[in-house]
Amino acid sequence: MTTIAFLGLGIMGAPMAANLVRAGYDVVGYNRSPARAERLATLGGRAAESIAAAVGDADVVITMLPDSPDVEQVALGPDGVIARARPGALYIDMSTISPDFAVRLADAGRAAGLRVLDAPVSGGEQGAIDGTLSIMIGGDPDDVAAAEPVLRAVGSTIVHVGPAGSGQTVKAANQLIVAGTIGLVAEAIVFLEAHGVDTERAVQVLAGGLAGNAILNRKAAGMLRRDFTPGFRSALHHKDLGILTTAARRAGVVLPLGTCAAALMASLTAQGHGDLDHTALLKLVEQLSGRSPADAES
Amino acid sequence: MTTIAFLGLGIMGAPMAANLVRAGYDVVGYNRSPARAERLATLGGRAAESIAAAVGDADVVITMLPDSPDVEQVALGPDGVIARARPGALYIDMSTISPDFAVRLADAGRAAGLRVLDAPVSGGEQGAIDGTLSIMIGGDPDDVAAAEPVLRAVGSTIVHVGPAGSGQTVKAANQLIVAGTIGLVAEAIVFLEAHGVDTERAVQVLAGGLAGNAILNRKAAGMLRRDFTPGFRSALHHKDLGILTTAARRAGVVLPLGTCAAALMASLTAQGHGDLDHTALLKLVEQLSGRSPADAES
Amino acid sequence: MTTIAFLGLGIMGAPMAANLVRAGYDVVGYNRSPARAERLATLGGRAAESIAAAVGDADVVITMLPDSPDVEQVALGPDGVIARARPGALYIDMSTISPDFAVRLADAGRAAGLRVLDAPVSGGEQGAIDGTLSIMIGGDPDDVAAAEPVLRAVGSTIVHVGPAGSGQTVKAANQLIVAGTIGLVAEAIVFLEAHGVDTERAVQVLAGGLAGNAILNRKAAGMLRRDFTPGFRSALHHKDLGILTTAARRAGVVLPLGTCAAALMASLTAQGHGDLDHTALLKLVEQLSGRSPADAES
Amino acid sequence: MTTIAFLGLGIMGAPMAANLVRAGYDVVGYNRSPARAERLATLGGRAAESIAAAVGDADVVITMLPDSPDVEQVALGPDGVIARARPGALYIDMSTISPDFAVRLADAGRAAGLRVLDAPVSGGEQGAIDGTLSIMIGGDPDDVAAAEPVLRAVGSTIVHVGPAGSGQTVKAANQLIVAGTIGLVAEAIVFLEAHGVDTERAVQVLAGGLAGNAILNRKAAGMLRRDFTPGFRSALHHKDLGILTTAARRAGVVLPLGTCAAALMASLTAQGHGDLDHTALLKLVEQLSGRSPADAES
Repeated sequence: MTTIAFLGLGIMGAPMAANLVRAGYDVVGYNRSPARAERLATLGGRAAESIAAAVGDADVVITMLPDSPDVEQVALGPDGVIARARPGALYIDMSTISPDFAVRLADAGRAAGLRVLDAPVSGGEQGAIDGTLSIMIGGDPDDVAAAEPVLRAVGSTIVHVGPAGSGQTVKAANQLIVAGTIGLVAEAIVFLEAHGVDTERAVQVLAGGLAGNAILNRKAAGMLRRDFTPGFRSALHHKDLGILTTAARRAGVVLPLGTCAAALMASLTAQGHGDLDHTALLKLVEQLSGRSPADAES
Repeated sequence: MTTIAFLGLGIMGAPMAANLVRAGYDVVGYNRSPARAERLATLGGRAAESIAAAVGDADVVITMLPDSPDVEQVALGPDGVIARARPGALYIDMSTISPDFAVRLADAGRAAGLRVLDAPVSGGEQGAIDGTLSIMIGGDPDDVAAAEPVLRAVGSTIVHVGPAGSGQTVKAANQLIVAGTIGLVAEAIVFLEAHGVDTERAVQVLAGGLAGNAILNRKAAGMLRRDFTPGFRSALHHKDLGILTTAARRAGVVLPLGTCAAALMASLTAQGHGDLDHTALLKLVEQLSGRSPADAES
Repeated sequence: MTTIAFLGLGIMGAPMAANLVRAGYDVVGYNRSPARAERLATLGGRAAESIAAAVGDADVVITMLPDSPDVEQVALGPDGVIARARPGALYIDMSTISPDFAVRLADAGRAAGLRVLDAPVSGGEQGAIDGTLSIMIGGDPDDVAAAEPVLRAVGSTIVHVGPAGSGQTVKAANQLIVAGTIGLVAEAIVFLEAHGVDTERAVQVLAGGLAGNAILNRKAAGMLRRDFTPGFRSALHHKDLGILTTAARRAGVVLPLGTCAAALMASLTAQGHGDLDHTALLKLVEQLSGRSPADAES
Repeated sequence: MTTIAFLGLGIMGAPMAANLVRAGYDVVGYNRSPARAERLATLGGRAAESIAAAVGDADVVITMLPDSPDVEQVALGPDGVIARARPGALYIDMSTISPDFAVRLADAGRAAGLRVLDAPVSGGEQGAIDGTLSIMIGGDPDDVAAAEPVLRAVGSTIVHVGPAGSGQTVKAANQLIVAGTIGLVAEAIVFLEAHGVDTERAVQVLAGGLAGNAILNRKAAGMLRRDFTPGFRSALHHKDLGILTTAARRAGVVLPLGTCAAALMASLTAQGHGDLDHTALLKLVEQLSGRSPADAES
């Protein structure tokens, strides 16, 4: 029976680990605050009290952590994954970090005899609960093949996109398109409201043509109601766009729209809305246009 | 039997008029170059030699023209639609023009006893041929109800979005989102290629999540092959973004991404690529990043 | 003795007309509100009750009006300058209008036997009072030579920059650089304040090097105090940037920074700050950065 | 007699060290390629063969290096300035690095008993030769006072702008304004040329008013001739704008124009023009507008 160490049992990690338990794996959970690991134990997993205890006997190690410093500490620390996992284990980092850091992780893991994949996800909390995440994987084909049965328990779209770091590169491109599309839909909504158009019907017709996108389908209704309950927090999207713009700069790639979208998300966070859903970019377009939600109703 | 005068038998107008003939309407076609009207006659319609001759007995008049000056001449000229159509006729302008001009047209038509709708479309040549256009309509509800049976012959999504001009407003928003999304996908592709990612697989995974959009579904494959056969010409999209930015400026609406997308499309046209498909924005992102299609293969 | 009709005695026009009186010219003033013409009479000029009365005997006609519609009415109306000035008169429009409209004015004037120049100014109210305006002139060299003695009474820098419309083109470029420079200085100030730097000393050292500009020299002290008393109103600068972006679009010229600066000025106006000095762009950069003037003091 | 160790004898450092010799200081030079230190010796200085040898007896240590990794190695390396300078020595880093790194340097130096200042310069090679650099200093007031006599030998404007790191913050703001102003002037030139205006005269009148700036005064003539001999290389300005945008991001400051200018400079470098003067931004505006220098002459 395959033993999986799962490190990071937050909003995303907890339901992912639960799905792995449900799929029949022996899952050993670890989280900085131990209550979350104990909750996993009540679902049929096991709770570990340290990273070392979690990864020592694992065939597969998964990390699902908020940001690079967390991954740095958990993976590269003196008692971290790479120091303590056994040689030959498969280490899958599913956090969103920079492609550069993913390559560094892969190199450090390989030097310690591990097989390392970067496998960030999209699909949000709901996708994590439903086990329908999209997973974009960077690494060696053999390792991807080995990981696939495990990943099937948490995702429905599993795509190998290239060598180490490529998963993170695609995730950065994903965050570029998502942020930009939210911005475009927000601009369209404010433009339509300012002209007294019936926005619900307008969204319906826009969604049906070449302008159609997942934001119009899944998020525009909430935007029209000004419901910015996350979902995905602006502050995290701001972090992800920092990864994007830094990687683009290093590669000499110029992103006119991406840079603009990143500045909008940075402003949203700077103005104290980091805890709102990323669709709150609508608030920023309203602000720039001197409009308030009340104007929209008139 | 309802008689429809159809003015403007170009790439979009010709198949739309043919669909109206097929639906059993008596369609009188007019075009500046008479050969196109004669072609309609061979399909079962009738050819008129002047605007006046076409609209004199029509119950419904439709114009489908490239740009505002054409509409101005055909609709408002001394022998144009508004001067020569009979009172009570329904005049549907399906061209893409500014919301302001659409309101002016509606006012002029009403003063002459006509009922006027602005009903621009999206869906392109293929949608016109298949009769599956999306139609966004501005005008009075009664007039929209009267037009609906006719429009069913050319479109599958028919949505009344508000008073006169609203159809054009929604069309402008549509062109904003389409141009912006093309730009975002172009930036993502160049970013991915610069990092050596497998772009076909990356497009597949991006299309499946919150980044999903119609450009990824219908246009990205052509973009990856650098096939920029139109489709929809950059020069026309550039014209439409001029309508957008002017309308936004008048309404006091600030569009950071829309303005950026409009500048990119303007550059594409200024550099002599106005006859390429609008997805040729990819060429511009490559240029800015000092990359060529050859780089993409490596 | 040369008789000058001066039409438009506002904030700029009144002191300019007064300077012409002082220089010994016979100045006949006209303004929509007659009190302003009477004030000119008390300074030694004459007041006219209509445009026709003002221009009928004039050797030189000058218009100094806020916007294109004003110029259209005063110059091209049935009892306007071009209809009523005597053939051979020199007509100098010193308003800020579009280059296209200036060419149209020149054509219409020439058809009526007038010699027409576009001669917009920079230098503001203080420059008008002091007679030290910069004047950029488009038109025929002979006409410029004829105008020069008159213009010497109101400006200190008088430059012939090309054929009809060229004065307005250079004025548009002037407004581009001024708006952009205000934006750059505003961004620098917010950046410096956020880092706790001594901004007064920083402005001093910035002004001394390659970053030096007239905004740092003349306007930055007011910006640091958040004194946005106009000076030059944002709403007018917004109007001027509309002239710029329209002219650039027609000429196929792409202005990445100019477009961005125009969007910022549009936002300032949309947010209700059109009556503040254009340096109030600083408020917008603070807003985007989630900062207030109080933050600056800390 | 005060002994100064001067590390980094490149285009800027060599003439600065020579000016210190000329001012009567005992200057010990060190450079990775020893020929440059020997050249200093021929001017009356002394050549050291290692950093340790240079700084061991110095009262003042100055570093003038191209980029952060150079400063990291020279200042923080095991045989670097901070390890080998004697306690109480004054260490002045005049390189352009990030404010964060400058603070880190100050902290490390203080821990080793040194007094540390960040003192980047503007004014370019000519300013270094003439001893007329502008110097913006961050650090403690007493240390600034101690450094001032030395700095008088290399600069004419010497301003203390705040605590450690502040010099670099002001330098970043300087580079923001310079890059943005070059971009604005480039856009104005292309706009004017596209309209057939006499650009030399236009530059003259623009320079005289509120649009006036040091780029128009010192650089526009070269831009009109398309002479892009550096001066200051685009690649270095690109590096400096990376410092700016990173620092702004950390501080939550949103720079709409700065971000745009940084993208333009990144594109110039990505397109292989990193060795041209930064005024080559003009080439980029021409490219975006589909124009070539030949168009300008017509």
